[in-house]
Amino acid sequence: MDLHGAFHVYDTTLRDGAQQEGLNLSVADKLSIARQLDGLGVGYIEGGWPGANPKDTEFFRRAAAELDLENARLAAFGATRRAGVRAADDPLVAALRDSGAGVVTLVAKSYDRHVELALRTTLEENLAMIRDTVSHLRAEGQTVFLDAEHFFDGYRANRDYALEVLRTAYDAGAEVIALCDTNGGMLPGWVGDVVHDVRENAQVRVGIHCHNDTGCAVANTLAAVDAGATHVQGTINGYGERTGNADLVAVVANLELKLDRRVLPPGLLTEATRIAHAVAEVTNFPPASRQPYVGSSAFTHKAGLHASAIKVDPNLYQHMDPAGVGNDMRLLVSDMAGRASIELKGRELGFDLSGDSPDDKTLVTRITDRVKVLESRGFTFEAADASFELLLAEEVEGVRPSYFDVESWRVITETMPSAEAVSEATVKLKAGGVRYVVTGEGNGPVNALDHALREAIVQAYPQVAKFELIDYKVRILDQGHGTDAITRVLIETSDGESSWVTVGVGANVIEASWGALVDGLTFGLRKHQA
Amino acid sequence: MDLHGAFHVYDTTLRDGAQQEGLNLSVADKLSIARQLDGLGVGYIEGGWPGANPKDTEFFRRAAAELDLENARLAAFGATRRAGVRAADDPLVAALRDSGAGVVTLVAKSYDRHVELALRTTLEENLAMIRDTVSHLRAEGQTVFLDAEHFFDGYRANRDYALEVLRTAYDAGAEVIALCDTNGGMLPGWVGDVVHDVRENAQVRVGIHCHNDTGCAVANTLAAVDAGATHVQGTINGYGERTGNADLVAVVANLELKLDRRVLPPGLLTEATRIAHAVAEVTNFPPASRQPYVGSSAFTHKAGLHASAIKVDPNLYQHMDPAGVGNDMRLLVSDMAGRASIELKGRELGFDLSGDSPDDKTLVTRITDRVKVLESRGFTFEAADASFELLLAEEVEGVRPSYFDVESWRVITETMPSAEAVSEATVKLKAGGVRYVVTGEGNGPVNALDHALREAIVQAYPQVAKFELIDYKVRILDQGHGTDAITRVLIETSDGESSWVTVGVGANVIEASWGALVDGLTFGLRKHQA
Repeated sequence: MDLHGAFHVYDTTLRDGAQQEGLNLSVADKLSIARQLDGLGVGYIEGGWPGANPKDTEFFRRAAAELDLENARLAAFGATRRAGVRAADDPLVAALRDSGAGVVTLVAKSYDRHVELALRTTLEENLAMIRDTVSHLRAEGQTVFLDAEHFFDGYRANRDYALEVLRTAYDAGAEVIALCDTNGGMLPGWVGDVVHDVRENAQVRVGIHCHNDTGCAVANTLAAVDAGATHVQGTINGYGERTGNADLVAVVANLELKLDRRVLPPGLLTEATRIAHAVAEVTNFPPASRQPYVGSSAFTHKAGLHASAIKVDPNLYQHMDPAGVGNDMRLLVSDMAGRASIELKGRELGFDLSGDSPDDKTLVTRITDRVKVLESRGFTFEAADASFELLLAEEVEGVRPSYFDVESWRVITETMPSAEAVSEATVKLKAGGVRYVVTGEGNGPVNALDHALREAIVQAYPQVAKFELIDYKVRILDQGHGTDAITRVLIETSDGESSWVTVGVGANVIEASWGALVDGLTFGLRKHQA
Repeated sequence: MDLHGAFHVYDTTLRDGAQQEGLNLSVADKLSIARQLDGLGVGYIEGGWPGANPKDTEFFRRAAAELDLENARLAAFGATRRAGVRAADDPLVAALRDSGAGVVTLVAKSYDRHVELALRTTLEENLAMIRDTVSHLRAEGQTVFLDAEHFFDGYRANRDYALEVLRTAYDAGAEVIALCDTNGGMLPGWVGDVVHDVRENAQVRVGIHCHNDTGCAVANTLAAVDAGATHVQGTINGYGERTGNADLVAVVANLELKLDRRVLPPGLLTEATRIAHAVAEVTNFPPASRQPYVGSSAFTHKAGLHASAIKVDPNLYQHMDPAGVGNDMRLLVSDMAGRASIELKGRELGFDLSGDSPDDKTLVTRITDRVKVLESRGFTFEAADASFELLLAEEVEGVRPSYFDVESWRVITETMPSAEAVSEATVKLKAGGVRYVVTGEGNGPVNALDHALREAIVQAYPQVAKFELIDYKVRILDQGHGTDAITRVLIETSDGESSWVTVGVGANVIEASWGALVDGLTFGLRKHQA
């Protein structure tokens, strides 16, 4: 029996995660992320610091009116009362009490030097500030958690005082004391030892809040849970100051799938990949492909060598079924391309190439051979699923999908003394029986070509209006030949809902880019049933 | 006393790291990364699989001729002999023996189901394959390490067999047995328990090779070391298949700075940030800003709240002194921008900036500030020594070296139906008092500009005739804005004896390339005393 009630999964993306360099969330962004977090089934969503930050005050106001949370409770974050005033008289404490969240997470100093140098008060007054603020908020009907800031450094410097802070808050009515590795310097063994000692000698309910400065935020969190912590804090995609906070999805997936602890409502972990990516859309940070569990590469195999064994038993080559976190096994079509991986890849894209008839075998062999030839010329289909799908469609259907005929194109880049370079592109093409001649400008040659091409095609295919080029990558192959080398361009195009990657190759970087642009539009038109 | 000799830091960036989705390394890239790894002081650099992969065979051939390693030994990776043949008769084993590396890391199956399903042989034959191959290579004078693939899964499935594999290799003469968490599903506590058991019951020298699928690769590696492993494998920047391998810099920094174990030659850990970023330039993957220890955000503070306390004692707000890994607390963009590194770099290039006079101090500060501004605009001087030297010369000598005045340039790229695109550039400039208007053609816009520019300048400066553009790299900064983003171009120019790298930045890729081209010629002319 757990004396402390249910395990807490506590998300702090909207508060501590938002400290990340370059991350700026509007109130609407925060509301949207809160809905996603609720969909993942976290128990608590820390929304910000009402009273200290007008945007956060506004968030709590609108959250009360607009959010209809199924799983989560909102928590308001803030400090204990100022030195020398009554908690009931401190307007910042009042803002916490009145936020409407119902849960208040108070941050308190537990490191003696921080009390003296940053708070500029006495150790005794700090304890009084904690005791008074917790008691006041409890008396006002709030649930109170305490974040013991810089706890692990404080514990090393002055264990007695650090433990006294925890006891003071707990005795005053805080439900959980979260031990914060604020500077992020801990390692798992140390965290385990300290949590053990706290559980033995302070008899409080322990939570854990880790940062990733040693690359161990997830492991440190698990070590704390192993030592008895029953409340874990973290952020989606590990957002946070410096190296980030503990990645909450990795923590929860490890707890549920590896350690067999149920910490989310049943079934919701399978939403993790979708939600992690949806939040990345809101923050506008590209999702990290190598992110544990939810990254686009997390279950990807360069299949050549092992494809036949993967077909026999995929679990020989993956640590878990990716469906458990809503991710997918993906096979890369790389230069080791073998029949088996092309077949598997085809199935993934909805083409059944696995038939037994000699004809089908010829088809797979033909595709495999063609991929090998293209890869030897510098193409890669590893990252360019959309170009690969167009190739498959061409081989299966006998003709390459095509919605427009290009007659010619030209792009000019020029500069004058002390002026920025400008690019201008002219594209001539036929679409839907009509000939278009369109000129577009841009801050670079590919940008100008993209504008001219889309302005021409949108006249025949209005659905192109919502396509947008969202990423452009250039790679020079064949080092040692300078600008004579082969260039490979990868372009990512979005239709606002999903995105796809196409590849172009050529001695001329502009021609390579053109190929990828044309593939990108063609794939999008095919997807939208032109 | 350590019965097993010195601790091994074993890097597998060039082999296992290169399995990362989208990562493609040329032989020149691999040689360049190997030099960086040697500069970090790793003990072993796994270069690839000679014999199985022509590019890797070439790497070992050129490494023997061109690399002059101070700290590291090269290791060739490969499989045990095929079933049913003698090790001495297996051409793949011969390729390992003859690679010139002197160290062979054999990968062997230690999971019974993998032996049966992937290797398609018997458990006994697998042991014989290991025994024979290790013995043969040892008899031929090679140092042999064994990578026990899928060890942790194998241990769970059939502990006796997994341990038997280790003993077999060790008894045959393998110096280290690296336990591989190939599927990456382990957690630190489990790794520690298994390594303990292996040390008790197989009496082999244990190494550890982890992947980051649970977000615990670094912690798993540390857990193994805590349980007695004395050989750690990892990759720079955590490159690798799926979620990547253990980040070697984080592992080593934790061992040295947190656990007080000396595992690199003294002083070299302070090169870690520079080297991690330099390798990222070669792989053309943008460095992750949140990467532990070396990320550009790793020691960045949103200081508002704590600014004064940080001034009193920065160590209250950081888990270590960032100088320990060559990083910087105020780091805006990269580690280059510290006074000390600018001074050092200046000395390297023949400018003494270290003087004690107030004037010299002003000079270093001015250069540092200018580098910071340029870096915030997207420049990098990490890889572009020649551009940095031009900047130093400008600051020291009061005027930027310049041998020609550009009036304007223009480049046109166009294509006609079923013809390859062609590019044509016109450059107007004055050199040596004469005005030149020259048009050059090329298979791409930068190639055409390079031709036109050199054809104009060579008329005033004949030494330009031997200059050649030998490498061209493009990086799109500010991902997520497609072709609107800032572009950074690195160009390497050779005079047949040595080569130098210059950098250009701009919204327009052609303009960025132009800047790097002009710097490249200017540096060459200065070098050849124009």
